[in-house]
Amino acid sequence: MLIQASCFLDFTCENPVPTTFMLRAKSGFGQFIIRDELHTKPYCTATEFTDNYGNLCQRMVLPVGNSRLESSVLADCRSDIDVDFSAGWTAVEYLPDFVLHFILPSRYCESDKMADIAMEIVQGCNPGYEQVDAICRWINTNVRYQYGTTNSSTSAYDILSSQTGVCRDFAHLGISLSRALDIPARMVTGYLYDLNPMDLHAWFEVYLAGRWFCFDPTQAAPRGNRINVAYGRDAADVAFATHFGNVELNEMIVRVDEKLP
Amino acid sequence: MLIQASCFLDFTCENPVPTTFMLRAKSGFGQFIIRDELHTKPYCTATEFTDNYGNLCQRMVLPVGNSRLESSVLADCRSDIDVDFSAGWTAVEYLPDFVLHFILPSRYCESDKMADIAMEIVQGCNPGYEQVDAICRWINTNVRYQYGTTNSSTSAYDILSSQTGVCRDFAHLGISLSRALDIPARMVTGYLYDLNPMDLHAWFEVYLAGRWFCFDPTQAAPRGNRINVAYGRDAADVAFATHFGNVELNEMIVRVDEKLP
Amino acid sequence: MLIQASCFLDFTCENPVPTTFMLRAKSGFGQFIIRDELHTKPYCTATEFTDNYGNLCQRMVLPVGNSRLESSVLADCRSDIDVDFSAGWTAVEYLPDFVLHFILPSRYCESDKMADIAMEIVQGCNPGYEQVDAICRWINTNVRYQYGTTNSSTSAYDILSSQTGVCRDFAHLGISLSRALDIPARMVTGYLYDLNPMDLHAWFEVYLAGRWFCFDPTQAAPRGNRINVAYGRDAADVAFATHFGNVELNEMIVRVDEKLP
Amino acid sequence: MLIQASCFLDFTCENPVPTTFMLRAKSGFGQFIIRDELHTKPYCTATEFTDNYGNLCQRMVLPVGNSRLESSVLADCRSDIDVDFSAGWTAVEYLPDFVLHFILPSRYCESDKMADIAMEIVQGCNPGYEQVDAICRWINTNVRYQYGTTNSSTSAYDILSSQTGVCRDFAHLGISLSRALDIPARMVTGYLYDLNPMDLHAWFEVYLAGRWFCFDPTQAAPRGNRINVAYGRDAADVAFATHFGNVELNEMIVRVDEKLP
Repeated sequence: MLIQASCFLDFTCENPVPTTFMLRAKSGFGQFIIRDELHTKPYCTATEFTDNYGNLCQRMVLPVGNSRLESSVLADCRSDIDVDFSAGWTAVEYLPDFVLHFILPSRYCESDKMADIAMEIVQGCNPGYEQVDAICRWINTNVRYQYGTTNSSTSAYDILSSQTGVCRDFAHLGISLSRALDIPARMVTGYLYDLNPMDLHAWFEVYLAGRWFCFDPTQAAPRGNRINVAYGRDAADVAFATHFGNVELNEMIVRVDEKLP
Repeated sequence: MLIQASCFLDFTCENPVPTTFMLRAKSGFGQFIIRDELHTKPYCTATEFTDNYGNLCQRMVLPVGNSRLESSVLADCRSDIDVDFSAGWTAVEYLPDFVLHFILPSRYCESDKMADIAMEIVQGCNPGYEQVDAICRWINTNVRYQYGTTNSSTSAYDILSSQTGVCRDFAHLGISLSRALDIPARMVTGYLYDLNPMDLHAWFEVYLAGRWFCFDPTQAAPRGNRINVAYGRDAADVAFATHFGNVELNEMIVRVDEKLP
Repeated sequence: MLIQASCFLDFTCENPVPTTFMLRAKSGFGQFIIRDELHTKPYCTATEFTDNYGNLCQRMVLPVGNSRLESSVLADCRSDIDVDFSAGWTAVEYLPDFVLHFILPSRYCESDKMADIAMEIVQGCNPGYEQVDAICRWINTNVRYQYGTTNSSTSAYDILSSQTGVCRDFAHLGISLSRALDIPARMVTGYLYDLNPMDLHAWFEVYLAGRWFCFDPTQAAPRGNRINVAYGRDAADVAFATHFGNVELNEMIVRVDEKLP
Repeated sequence: MLIQASCFLDFTCENPVPTTFMLRAKSGFGQFIIRDELHTKPYCTATEFTDNYGNLCQRMVLPVGNSRLESSVLADCRSDIDVDFSAGWTAVEYLPDFVLHFILPSRYCESDKMADIAMEIVQGCNPGYEQVDAICRWINTNVRYQYGTTNSSTSAYDILSSQTGVCRDFAHLGISLSRALDIPARMVTGYLYDLNPMDLHAWFEVYLAGRWFCFDPTQAAPRGNRINVAYGRDAADVAFATHFGNVELNEMIVRVDEKLP
């Protein structure tokens, strides 16, 4: 399905603020970018680089006063999501090199402290897809989705206590519980068609049976029609904006629509 | 300066033909891509990857019958070109690792056979920018620009005899003569504003005094307002289309316009 | 100076334990590896890969029972260390892309919480080398070096309270305080000639004036003759051994000697 | 099997000559490097980098007069070689991105001119392994191995006429004929146990059914016990020594021995 997505941001700065954005999607597995645009007002010189995870990062200096940025993308996406309950767990010694560091704990995903709770949640499941599915259903049932209850320093371990959070927190918890079972897991940020309420979104992927599977604990059932923008170990790697200075975000509008070919 | 460029291609195939295109520019030194689009008619599923040189490559299977492709890009480009006659030659042992293989001969650039002619052309020049400038002026004066006199197997050494060719051949010769003087040189394909006649273009860059300088032997004087699409050792690395099967190219239209911000 | 260094490890496992080691140095800036060896007893099949930071990682499955591993290296190292009090701070917008993520907080380096203390420590210093030098002297004076007071979950912020730790903790604190001043900082593990007591060592590097400078807060004065083994954001990226299972480390012997050419 | 291999080189230079060597093997698929050494006499400062293909390259300036270099390696290698006549051809559109450029012609492998001869040689074979096996048997039967009949500018197309050459030429011809059938093929340089006469060796690999297969047209039957040193499109990418100046090679001694664990 063709999806047209956009993110509009309105900022105010008192001083020029160097900023790195991660707002542009790249063609890759399951998605092809047909059109991509990034506009700034007032016009702002920018550069772009590719980080260690292959994500596109845009650098610019936000000027003093008001500035607006609009990123929009038209992508050919998978509507059907890859669901395979028979996809089994791969023993660590047989994992490919490049997924190894997605088993380790990271800044917001203290998987080393979650072995017991993970084992409890997946009790009776076959190792692999079934386990991650159980984890997602558990999170979806037990964690309450609520804006404003967490901030940029909230980690998965905090969520385990508070049992409340937003998509980023749900993803961190899913990642941590998967890694606690030696299942490689990575965070994904991007757009999800028909998300409610609409926003920039975050979910996670796990590596089983030689491929990555998408899981989204904010949703009751698997859903496709996603545009993947950035991949990383957790939110520390994939912040949509990193400001080196004080910036006020006045407004943020996200839109995701179906488009006819 | 903002430049809007596009390339329209019209093909006919008797069988489905897997094809790799290199038609999309990437943000990088001296250019920021504001908008990029790639459309196919009939709609054709595509994937994209990044090659060893950092270029974007689009893969698709051209269907039986007629198919059209349009790639367009809006970029913020440098109008002023970096011209520095004082930029000197760097001895091989002090070159950074990543430019070393741009001194070696490659498929279309037999620099190993051109030491004598190169020395003759640059006689009296200071090592570095002055030499490459002399090479470009020599090519511009001595090689006649003419469509249809060369083909995809023509190399720089052939051009030295025939003294006729197109932009790709001019670039190959400039690269070969530079490498013959141990100056790292790489090919660039892309768009040049106000090129006459308009076409997909090719030129080259040399590495001097710690940076890359643009040289275009098809032009009498240095000119900016270029969109760089792909980099490589020579045309073997940066073909705008590689077909694995028979394809007829019916039409090709290239446009490059200035755009107001 | 030629340095011969080795690390001998003796393990016991009750089950086979997949393990990733980071024990082999690579030739790079300021060091050339003349000889490198890695032996296991009993002989253990291994593979090796290069991680996102360019570090060599060795994968093997430690067998049931006793196993010993010896890594040794002969390297040509810099004896003189690059000390330049005039090396100034680079504004974030002028930093090269590849150092940007070394300004952000990471798992063990909560730089976002240390702006005040960092500002206090560097009061009166010129931005850049002078500041990092002041940070190192402050750590060297105020933090007590003591084995056994910290563990693998201790972060820089913890050290700020406890004011006690080992080389890894000293490095985390130096990194955090530097990043709090928007100075890119990365962790280095490796060998230091004449370290007392001898051990695998850790220190850090900061990026100023276009190059990396070595700082070691465990030492009262700058010292060269180091073999760099691994680079990363903090200890999470550069653990010398990551075990996926229970392993007992019975013995560890590190030796570093000068060698005549 | 453990293999101990070494290459001794003795040079004379009249001027200092910057040189890049590709003489050090890296752990990778099917081999683990236990020990690696590189010695120069007189002692010569060196640096090392990794090229676009993942090969290790050593840079140094050979001094005036006589200099000797010895590279030696102890590796755990595969004795059994992967032979699978059922491994079929993969259509171009299903090949992974990273093998695509191994189908294209390159400097010494003019596959574009060899479609007819390739089709003739593999007549009656199933697409894939059987074809490449037929190609190797054809080369082994029809090309005469003889030192001194070719040089550094000899290409596969030349060999087709002269029907004489050395390992490098045999490999170029095997690569070209495979690519002419749209089978990705790459060159490998390294050591082969029990090669007769002993020398630095070259062979090739083709990509079929999702993996690389080793083929060596200088040998009558498949043989393992190889140490892979460098990979590339052809000899232009993997020269064991590239001199930027005049160097006389006085002597070269290669040894390959079995070693007990």
